[in-house]
Amino acid sequence: MRIDILTVLPEMFESPLGCSILKRAQDKGLAEIVVHNLRDYTDDKHRKVDDYPFGGEAGMVMKVQPVEACINALKREREYDEVIFTSPDGETFNQKMANGLSMAENLIVLCGHYKGVDYRIREHLVTKEISIGDYVLTGGELPALVMTDAIVRLIPGAIGDEQSALSDSFQDDLLAPPIYTRPADYNGWKVPDILLSGHEAKIAEWRHEQSLERTRRLRPDLLDE
Amino acid sequence: MRIDILTVLPEMFESPLGCSILKRAQDKGLAEIVVHNLRDYTDDKHRKVDDYPFGGEAGMVMKVQPVEACINALKREREYDEVIFTSPDGETFNQKMANGLSMAENLIVLCGHYKGVDYRIREHLVTKEISIGDYVLTGGELPALVMTDAIVRLIPGAIGDEQSALSDSFQDDLLAPPIYTRPADYNGWKVPDILLSGHEAKIAEWRHEQSLERTRRLRPDLLDE
Repeated sequence: MRIDILTVLPEMFESPLGCSILKRAQDKGLAEIVVHNLRDYTDDKHRKVDDYPFGGEAGMVMKVQPVEACINALKREREYDEVIFTSPDGETFNQKMANGLSMAENLIVLCGHYKGVDYRIREHLVTKEISIGDYVLTGGELPALVMTDAIVRLIPGAIGDEQSALSDSFQDDLLAPPIYTRPADYNGWKVPDILLSGHEAKIAEWRHEQSLERTRRLRPDLLDE
Repeated sequence: MRIDILTVLPEMFESPLGCSILKRAQDKGLAEIVVHNLRDYTDDKHRKVDDYPFGGEAGMVMKVQPVEACINALKREREYDEVIFTSPDGETFNQKMANGLSMAENLIVLCGHYKGVDYRIREHLVTKEISIGDYVLTGGELPALVMTDAIVRLIPGAIGDEQSALSDSFQDDLLAPPIYTRPADYNGWKVPDILLSGHEAKIAEWRHEQSLERTRRLRPDLLDE
């Protein structure tokens, strides 16, 4: 799959896209992630991408022209499944949405910055508005990275062990059970005996019970759905 | 305020901490953000920070020892308000939590990676478990950056115009109204007339109505609270 990220802060993506799973997925050819600097698409002679808001509010607003020019240039090259805008008032991102988007072929993710984007971009160019949670961030860059990470790691082959993604929290609407590694006794902090027993079936049962108990206690809303 | 981030992937933080608001807040002395490589705290001769899980599950688990050594070293230097662990089954992060944490003096944020951390770390060393949303990521690094960004931008002086943070979505449980910038007519896509009218009071009223209407339509749950 290919993800095109449109931003006024391309430098912010360098290290997160250059390490761990996102780097590995790109190196293996599973995902192509291309970051575009919106300043390269402006027709303003000073390369400005923002301007003052109408009606005299505080903050700056991202202009329609560079965003439209960049999206149109990309659409001439290939078809896109969605043009996503990261915004705190978008639909809340969750694992089901990540599963769905991981099946897409080409995605555009537009990162808002400053006070936001001219609303006409949202009305005419964006097909899906997504929020990663009920909090305000400096820009849409971190949300774009969060979505990219959540989506790309679901592509078969992206993480080392395919079992690993299936047993994650949320894939079965249950939280993951506690996990432990050596030593079995760390200065008196002990691993549950059952995990040292070698009884595979009993361990599987214990894990399922722990998942259920943790979900009931911490996230009962997941069980209602 | 000071935020200490504990990770096995320190290189991932370089560009996000080195640009935009997070860089500016550090340059101004408003926030000190220190990234610690957990490999520097391991007593293992191969600098290993992870090991196989007990009970034979897929994936690797972060060991107790390097995490405890790092947290203890930091606690000898200063008092911490919270030791936060980023985890999909933690309490869901929101703007109220960001407001609260922006008043802290010193925070530790532990990033999980691989399959997760040894559960004893969560039982004995962590004071607060936070999830940035109902989705699974490769590690806690992006969530740590998301929380850091949401918290640091609330420190007075961190963003250019203090008005700007107060008029953001969620600060008054309402979504932000649409914003527009020049040109007033972009190939037939027009800015609402009211914003060009110059009537300050009417513009304020229009914005409030738009906020209410958008919140009712997109996020009625915010009005119930």
